[in-house]
Amino acid sequence: MVRYSPGRSIVLEENGWSVRVLDQRALPWRVTWAELTTVTLAAEAISEMWVRGAPLIGATAAYGLCLALREDPSDASLERSVALLLRTRPTAVNLRWALERVRAAVQPSRGTERVAAAYRCAAAICDEDVTNNRAIGEYGLELLRAAATPGRTINVLTHCNAGALATVDYGTALAPIYRAKELGLPVHVWVDETRPRNQGALLTAYELGRAQVAHTVIADNAGGLLMQRGEVDLCIVGADRVSRNGDVCNKIGTYLKALAAYDNNVPFYVAVPLSTFDGSLASGSDIPIEQRDPDEVISISGQNSAGNIEKVKLTHSPAANPAFDITPARLVTAYITERGIFRHSAEWDQHARTQGGVLHTTGV
Amino acid sequence: MVRYSPGRSIVLEENGWSVRVLDQRALPWRVTWAELTTVTLAAEAISEMWVRGAPLIGATAAYGLCLALREDPSDASLERSVALLLRTRPTAVNLRWALERVRAAVQPSRGTERVAAAYRCAAAICDEDVTNNRAIGEYGLELLRAAATPGRTINVLTHCNAGALATVDYGTALAPIYRAKELGLPVHVWVDETRPRNQGALLTAYELGRAQVAHTVIADNAGGLLMQRGEVDLCIVGADRVSRNGDVCNKIGTYLKALAAYDNNVPFYVAVPLSTFDGSLASGSDIPIEQRDPDEVISISGQNSAGNIEKVKLTHSPAANPAFDITPARLVTAYITERGIFRHSAEWDQHARTQGGVLHTTGV
Repeated sequence: MVRYSPGRSIVLEENGWSVRVLDQRALPWRVTWAELTTVTLAAEAISEMWVRGAPLIGATAAYGLCLALREDPSDASLERSVALLLRTRPTAVNLRWALERVRAAVQPSRGTERVAAAYRCAAAICDEDVTNNRAIGEYGLELLRAAATPGRTINVLTHCNAGALATVDYGTALAPIYRAKELGLPVHVWVDETRPRNQGALLTAYELGRAQVAHTVIADNAGGLLMQRGEVDLCIVGADRVSRNGDVCNKIGTYLKALAAYDNNVPFYVAVPLSTFDGSLASGSDIPIEQRDPDEVISISGQNSAGNIEKVKLTHSPAANPAFDITPARLVTAYITERGIFRHSAEWDQHARTQGGVLHTTGV
Repeated sequence: MVRYSPGRSIVLEENGWSVRVLDQRALPWRVTWAELTTVTLAAEAISEMWVRGAPLIGATAAYGLCLALREDPSDASLERSVALLLRTRPTAVNLRWALERVRAAVQPSRGTERVAAAYRCAAAICDEDVTNNRAIGEYGLELLRAAATPGRTINVLTHCNAGALATVDYGTALAPIYRAKELGLPVHVWVDETRPRNQGALLTAYELGRAQVAHTVIADNAGGLLMQRGEVDLCIVGADRVSRNGDVCNKIGTYLKALAAYDNNVPFYVAVPLSTFDGSLASGSDIPIEQRDPDEVISISGQNSAGNIEKVKLTHSPAANPAFDITPARLVTAYITERGIFRHSAEWDQHARTQGGVLHTTGV
């Protein structure tokens, strides 16, 4: 069996201190790596979306703190850099989670010892992300198998990119698909293009193509019809934050697919590491929704006939660009985590308060 | 009071026989009119979407038959041309309705008399379309007023283009909005961009802009969040075909907005002339759904920095492109027609069989 790995999206350079990240703005047209040498650059990489995806944002922020402490390991530098990195993106909770984890790890020590502790912690965050994602893949595989009709291709619909490119490696929502591919199960993915930034058409399609997973890009509008026609066996998406009651904050448009899945009895799964659960928020309505630049709706970039990337304008009118929406817990069939598959239950709320504690797991 | 008219999308030329249509593929970048001189050109104008929108497709097809009969008024020519025009687009029922109406009007006569009868019938179809749309505007205005909070702007969400450009003039879904504008009511429209062909960002935004109606273009993914937040007072869409049980076939993605409206108690209205009702179909699942070229998803055209229209590629992957979906009648609050506002009722099915007959009307 081939153990499939799309390849890490963030790597420590051989010099032992700077960090290389895949600049996802150029994909799939060019594979470009960017070297992050300062916390300012790390913050820019997150806010300008060279990197994106809740787990990868967390990992990049962790290394951003390392770079800051390497220049100045003082408490003041630590706090300034935590604040700087926290400001980059408001929605993904993994950002705060990773920064708090590094801060806790470095607080007891000083000087070069503190720097070393930061790098150890960032490396652990990255390694655990990959381990967690493989576990999510293993648990999710059960759900793919449960949805499959013997002898028929399993049709999965996904929104945005919650693949290897949204994580350190392997992905969350795509992990069960890669696991199925490793085992030779026939699987096909409907890829929502995911306007306005088209992370589906650009990133998910790219990484599924590299992994030779059969897939078809569709307009975000199309998923409802496909579900009405029985052409989707299950939906799997990632999340940027899950509140205590199980509401899911994810890329804008996720809610519409969850509604369609519910209306057509198609299982709707959210694949998330436990670090994406925010025990401090009672419900999804408390999650801050990032408003991004309207120009992401007004213009779009693609490859012109000469092979160059060109930005074209799509309308003369004003636009609005909210980046996330909230899928109420009642529409989520189950959550696929590194500790198993969770269904919403009476125990949920209580357990979810202890983020990272042992949650209630049920069989499928 | 200004009586607002966006201007006719199809006009008989001064020569009295050829027809001028606005080539909507070039909007909003260029205003280009195309002269249709043969039935072949009329068929191309429909199939290649120089014109689109169920009522305008019907009007163009009617004039297409006129052009055919002018060259050859024989029965064979009539039947050949009806068949040719019917093949252009499979989903909008107004196409068949208009062709059957012209055929019935010309059947009793022969020769030049037949040609004259065809032109009279096509002109009547166009004039009635405008009259019907103004009536739809008047009835729909009641619903806008009902949804309004005094002193606050009325926020309407619409999908695709069911405006003046989808009809001969004035529009169906946009008619109540133009009527509100004429009366000086504060109204703002959320315009779904409507991938893959972006009729919202290109056409609806263009005609609302010309009419100085406040509007904001959004990604198709955004409407659910806006409804969750209470930023949409009502939705109004058009339709390509309504089956006997009230199921609505409209541009792909309409169903997803109807689900979100239902989930958030936002009224969801379908504005349609009675010619869009297809009494021959029991339910929406009988409506043929057009599959269009996947390249409409893979590539997109826009204005580049030099001001030219350029097509850019959005993905290397394969794509699928279904053009319509079905919104079940249970999600539709009411239908706004030229004969009043219809709610789904026990009488619906019986009345809808007599297409164009007197349907059951209820107050709002």
